Amino acid sequence: MKKISVINTGGTFSSKETKYGLAPKIDATELSSLLGTEDDVNLVLEDYCSLDSSNITPKDWKAIAQRVDEWKDDCDGIIIIHGTDTMAYTSSMLSFMLQNIQIPVVLTGSQLPIGMPMSDAVDNFHCALKMVLEGHPGVYLAFNRKIMLGCRVSKVRTVSFDAFESINYPCIGKIDAFGIHIKKHYIPEMKAEYRLRNNYSDRIAVLKIFPGMPADIFTFLLENGYDGAYIEGFGLGGVPFMHNDLTKEIQKASEHGLPILVGSQCRYEGSNLEIYETGQRVLQCGGIPVHDMTQEAVVTKLMWALGQSKERGKIIELFQRNVIGEVTLEV
Amino acid sequence: MKKISVINTGGTFSSKETKYGLAPKIDATELSSLLGTEDDVNLVLEDYCSLDSSNITPKDWKAIAQRVDEWKDDCDGIIIIHGTDTMAYTSSMLSFMLQNIQIPVVLTGSQLPIGMPMSDAVDNFHCALKMVLEGHPGVYLAFNRKIMLGCRVSKVRTVSFDAFESINYPCIGKIDAFGIHIKKHYIPEMKAEYRLRNNYSDRIAVLKIFPGMPADIFTFLLENGYDGAYIEGFGLGGVPFMHNDLTKEIQKASEHGLPILVGSQCRYEGSNLEIYETGQRVLQCGGIPVHDMTQEAVVTKLMWALGQSKERGKIIELFQRNVIGEVTLEV
Repeated sequence: MKKISVINTGGTFSSKETKYGLAPKIDATELSSLLGTEDDVNLVLEDYCSLDSSNITPKDWKAIAQRVDEWKDDCDGIIIIHGTDTMAYTSSMLSFMLQNIQIPVVLTGSQLPIGMPMSDAVDNFHCALKMVLEGHPGVYLAFNRKIMLGCRVSKVRTVSFDAFESINYPCIGKIDAFGIHIKKHYIPEMKAEYRLRNNYSDRIAVLKIFPGMPADIFTFLLENGYDGAYIEGFGLGGVPFMHNDLTKEIQKASEHGLPILVGSQCRYEGSNLEIYETGQRVLQCGGIPVHDMTQEAVVTKLMWALGQSKERGKIIELFQRNVIGEVTLEV
Repeated sequence: MKKISVINTGGTFSSKETKYGLAPKIDATELSSLLGTEDDVNLVLEDYCSLDSSNITPKDWKAIAQRVDEWKDDCDGIIIIHGTDTMAYTSSMLSFMLQNIQIPVVLTGSQLPIGMPMSDAVDNFHCALKMVLEGHPGVYLAFNRKIMLGCRVSKVRTVSFDAFESINYPCIGKIDAFGIHIKKHYIPEMKAEYRLRNNYSDRIAVLKIFPGMPADIFTFLLENGYDGAYIEGFGLGGVPFMHNDLTKEIQKASEHGLPILVGSQCRYEGSNLEIYETGQRVLQCGGIPVHDMTQEAVVTKLMWALGQSKERGKIIELFQRNVIGEVTLEV
């Protein structure tokens, strides 16, 4: 008999109609009667919180990682029920905080609340359960019969059941009428000993640039104790260097010791700062390339890296490495 | 003989290798010998600028719109050659500035410079030319044999030739071996007289939120003369209202008269603030919904609307209307 822990955090999955619209109301006890189970599985459900995932904060990530760490020797795997809105952020951050964990940790949620006709909640839960029972260590996200690496997912659709995509990386597996099919060679190798690493800094900014973007926001970051920033540039990662010169702001911030990451606001195929003059200038000014990472992975890796060290050199070193499969580096 | 004006602004299309990487170097005269033409077409090329489109600013939009306005009675249509990185911003802004124009204005560019083997430049140019020759008034973007509405496009891929998508709206047409096929019913009706409307304000901010996002950036906007902001929320447009409460920042800014737009960082299917408590609270705090608009259309519509009036009520009124086909409103 396998013992699987289920940590409920709320989200659409456990929502009910309220006078303010849908809000998470169903607790673990009620969930456990609705979910059903499989033979030879002992599901142990507990509530961590009951939040719309828009309200999840980095404090929750730290606490959830802590809870997983406490559970890890006492069960065969962990399912985390989570709202879809920030699930890709949570799965990315847990991937960093729990790197090299020796059990499967699978996040899931749903686009319609459990108990509603047509709901995908029970279905998604059983996808997650199937993945946990496969026994592959690591952090994953199961949704709409797809299994994805936790640090590679984004929510790309707001209404469809197929809400998540694995970005710039293949899905790890799928579930069909014949069962679950895992492509083991897509599961990144574990490189080191497991250790809970759940410190972070959330004094960061995300700046999605646009033509004409005022530059004074960079001064604000420097003068208000920010620890770093992520700039979503244009195309392959270009940032204006004429007329409205933002590269000199990157240079100023870098000289002040702030790590400034630069990527692309295009969803697919990643950034590359080496091709165009506009990218090369970003590199010369100290911009740190994020290659093909999702914005969720960049944001959480930056927060997490700053929790290990505030030193710009150390942050650069971490962003030059593929820590957990979050980035494709040219060899 | 049809007379088609071609305005060259630079971009990859007209780039050459330099010691700093690719940069726009080929002018209209050189382009005109490389492009080829069709029978019965008189192409008149001129250089507006020779910029990597990361360096395009709202000033350029104003000037390009002005130039189109000057040309409009003297030609049958206009092609604008533009870098791909900000082309969706430019095509969106020109859609607002040139609304109800009576000739076709078609933007195009390429992923590889003209003259390189495998380049898509000549091909994309001829797609644009075919669209212009069809004679449908309005602002469009032609790329990789697709014709898209100028105010509905985003660059979604950084490397593939199929770099652009029409977001939350069908393509207007396609080009295949049998020629160009336009779905006329997808072309929005013109509702009013043409008039050049090229004023704007670029004192705006784009805030892509993330769990734990510090709230002090809102205070910065209020104290530094910003005219408005666009918040990319989670999922259907949710914004945290517990723990790290950003809805009260929206409320404060709204009470100060700032228009705060709220949409989704999910690329597809748009936002809807009515479904969840987290969305309804955004509305109660004065957040203005952007429905299924692209971020490029939101940013440029906001800049453009602020150029017509700084009054929050007027901005709200403009965002409640489908001005040029940029948004799908529920009836």
